[in-house]
Amino acid sequence: MSTKPLDYENLNENVKKCQYAVRGELYLRASELQKEGKKIIFTNVGNPHALGQKPLTFPRQVIALCQAPFLLDDPNVGLLFPADAIAKAKHYLSLNSGGLGAYSDSRGIPGVRIEVADFIERRDGYPSDPEHIFLTDGASKGIMQILHTIIRVPTDGVLVPVPQYPLYSATISLYGGSLVPYYLEETADWGLDINDLRQSIGQARQNGTTVRAMVIINPGNPTGQCLTEQNLRQIIQFCYEENLVLLADEVYQQNIYQDKHPFMSARKVLFDMGQPISKELQLVSFHTVSKGYWGECGQRGGYFEMTNIPPKSVEEIYKVASISLSPNVPAQIFMGLLANPLKLGDISYEQFSRESKGILESLRRRAHIMTDGFNSCKNVVWAMYSFPQIQLPPRAIDAAKKVEKAADVFYCLKLLEATGISTVPGSGFGQKEGVFHLRTTILPAEEDMPSIMSSFKKFNDEFMDRYE
Amino acid sequence: MSTKPLDYENLNENVKKCQYAVRGELYLRASELQKEGKKIIFTNVGNPHALGQKPLTFPRQVIALCQAPFLLDDPNVGLLFPADAIAKAKHYLSLNSGGLGAYSDSRGIPGVRIEVADFIERRDGYPSDPEHIFLTDGASKGIMQILHTIIRVPTDGVLVPVPQYPLYSATISLYGGSLVPYYLEETADWGLDINDLRQSIGQARQNGTTVRAMVIINPGNPTGQCLTEQNLRQIIQFCYEENLVLLADEVYQQNIYQDKHPFMSARKVLFDMGQPISKELQLVSFHTVSKGYWGECGQRGGYFEMTNIPPKSVEEIYKVASISLSPNVPAQIFMGLLANPLKLGDISYEQFSRESKGILESLRRRAHIMTDGFNSCKNVVWAMYSFPQIQLPPRAIDAAKKVEKAADVFYCLKLLEATGISTVPGSGFGQKEGVFHLRTTILPAEEDMPSIMSSFKKFNDEFMDRYE
Repeated sequence: MSTKPLDYENLNENVKKCQYAVRGELYLRASELQKEGKKIIFTNVGNPHALGQKPLTFPRQVIALCQAPFLLDDPNVGLLFPADAIAKAKHYLSLNSGGLGAYSDSRGIPGVRIEVADFIERRDGYPSDPEHIFLTDGASKGIMQILHTIIRVPTDGVLVPVPQYPLYSATISLYGGSLVPYYLEETADWGLDINDLRQSIGQARQNGTTVRAMVIINPGNPTGQCLTEQNLRQIIQFCYEENLVLLADEVYQQNIYQDKHPFMSARKVLFDMGQPISKELQLVSFHTVSKGYWGECGQRGGYFEMTNIPPKSVEEIYKVASISLSPNVPAQIFMGLLANPLKLGDISYEQFSRESKGILESLRRRAHIMTDGFNSCKNVVWAMYSFPQIQLPPRAIDAAKKVEKAADVFYCLKLLEATGISTVPGSGFGQKEGVFHLRTTILPAEEDMPSIMSSFKKFNDEFMDRYE
Repeated sequence: MSTKPLDYENLNENVKKCQYAVRGELYLRASELQKEGKKIIFTNVGNPHALGQKPLTFPRQVIALCQAPFLLDDPNVGLLFPADAIAKAKHYLSLNSGGLGAYSDSRGIPGVRIEVADFIERRDGYPSDPEHIFLTDGASKGIMQILHTIIRVPTDGVLVPVPQYPLYSATISLYGGSLVPYYLEETADWGLDINDLRQSIGQARQNGTTVRAMVIINPGNPTGQCLTEQNLRQIIQFCYEENLVLLADEVYQQNIYQDKHPFMSARKVLFDMGQPISKELQLVSFHTVSKGYWGECGQRGGYFEMTNIPPKSVEEIYKVASISLSPNVPAQIFMGLLANPLKLGDISYEQFSRESKGILESLRRRAHIMTDGFNSCKNVVWAMYSFPQIQLPPRAIDAAKKVEKAADVFYCLKLLEATGISTVPGSGFGQKEGVFHLRTTILPAEEDMPSIMSSFKKFNDEFMDRYE
């Protein structure tokens, strides 16, 4: 009998080609070990609640009331919920006819998109149009939709930083386009050298690639750097000259633990640059409720904002969004709550601000513990991740070759088996030839960090002893 | 200056090609009219809560507690929540480390997938493997993912019923495949004639199409029919002989208001047929929390179940699901609650069952009002929609041509302007040449139905008078 349509050999080749290291070999092995009863510390993905971070109380009160609107008529509701949460729940319920059980407009609830536009205006100092903001099931879905709109044929290319978050490489494969890498410079705090960028695009064009877009991840994933204002100006100028759409992944904008390079949105820098470029450059910016001090990953909320995208194209993007009807409504409310937070004087303000500060300060302390712990490696920690370089001795590289593994995969697997720490090898994000890294989040509980770092150090020393 | 990458002329052609009538021209015009202050009755999409259906209390209590887990420690929780809702919330929180704020496994929470497998086993009488069940953000996302896995090149074809739910035509366009239509027979209660099916596939192959899959929508959308067991056997045999994957869209399985043709899942019929076919045919079945008497559209919950799909292919599907990390977690809990409902004797059982019955009976009554109201047209109502045929006089067809509209679009626009009733023209779903329909949901509030039907009748009489 012939093979069947869903047999492996008959699947869409783009589906087979794509790789997603964050939940790849290491994650699968970690899941197996967990099933066998081993204690695993999952630091492969930025998933703070899974590692014990508590949700912020106020947004959860509001969403609980939206899910159970009948409580609003209960005389006892005030015993469990503060008045401002009750008022906010009524506000959000009034924005979507039928509440959380009803599909919203496919772009998201109009009233929430207005709150997001106001948030952007406060942040950047320039007004934002809610009609150009689409709410999404997490930032990932929005990024995937925009890349799908851009990629037409296999020779369409997208500039992606290396190291990068593998959502980009996977999605570009999935939609059958070409990834055009540009390297971030480890020795310069993972900054971006505009000359390297010119070289990357030149080489890609020589190879017949039509470069159509450039991705920046700012603050960086996995590297954690914030691009400087000067760097952003160069990038914007470059995209303008080279006729590229700029895709600005800014999901870590609230994860800043240093004052040297504050976060600036690509949109603000673009508008600061004035005309003609501010009216010309096509920009799509992404944000989420999954990161920052909220960490509401499981809710899957996010948005993208389009700048200088013509109305006919916005309509097409709207049409495609409408095929899956609407992003999930509860997460849209989370997005609204993030965009339109409590103000000084609100009943719950003090608690909300204490909780937020507590989370951010703990993240900052954990970032420092990790920076110190990895000080044998070159390492900078700024956002939610650490991406230390691992100096692998030649004998380790040979041992990895024997078992047909990349050297950093080999190292991370040994680390996992020995300590239960589940990381992602640098090769999943891309790195220069012969240089090896691992990525870990800084999210394990603060009280566990010292023992994690010392078990890492013990493993690393033994590994080096063995292979040196 | 040259055009830019996100200008309309430079977008992915597949994006531009796809059409999605449910939120197409009629919906956009209705939204405009609504903005201008006109009262619009949206019957374009099966969105029951938006038209006043109340959510079931028990699942909403559970999810509210899961969103606000700190309430579980509050001594007053019992004043607002029954003990079984509290117990269920604790159960679901125990299934995902970090609760609703944490990404789950990309296939969905293992414990919920076990509950779904048990539901399927109770329904069909055959065991189901939770490892082959993936939870999704609504059924649509799952359908899109599977179609993407199947479609490799433009000549890959998928058999789709006409009339169909335009998710299928839109998605096949979006992923660059070929839609191969087969016609449902209006004069035979929208049944499926296996000889027509053979003709469709034969013709497609003559045209160079590689037909790889067949979609059935059972109960039908927009037609509402339940396929008979005999029909399902024929379809399964046909897919087996022709080496097609069968995609069974069964999201309306709880929307049955007649006893003539009870719902039977494709999976049950497949297993009843025994070996070899039961071990051979590749089948993917889809379900949702959006339909039935739950109608929780805005939550975006659903699943697909794979039967006879080889492990290596399941792995690939898992990998692609993992790119967007996880389906939204709150809706996974809804899926679990739907799969594992309250039992006789549970505290909340009586209320839950009264509410469910109330909704189903009201839907049934509304289905009958609509059947009677459209009795001038040929019409059968069984699931959530009515799809009456509209006999358009030649002068109306000419008038439509003059304004460059399809005749049924013309009719539906006039209906919208005159009455505020927002329907979808039959051409959005596909219909035979020269035959016209409209699709409306049966979801407007029961008390509004008589006036809606009489305003429809008045409009229709005037329209016919004018153009006859």
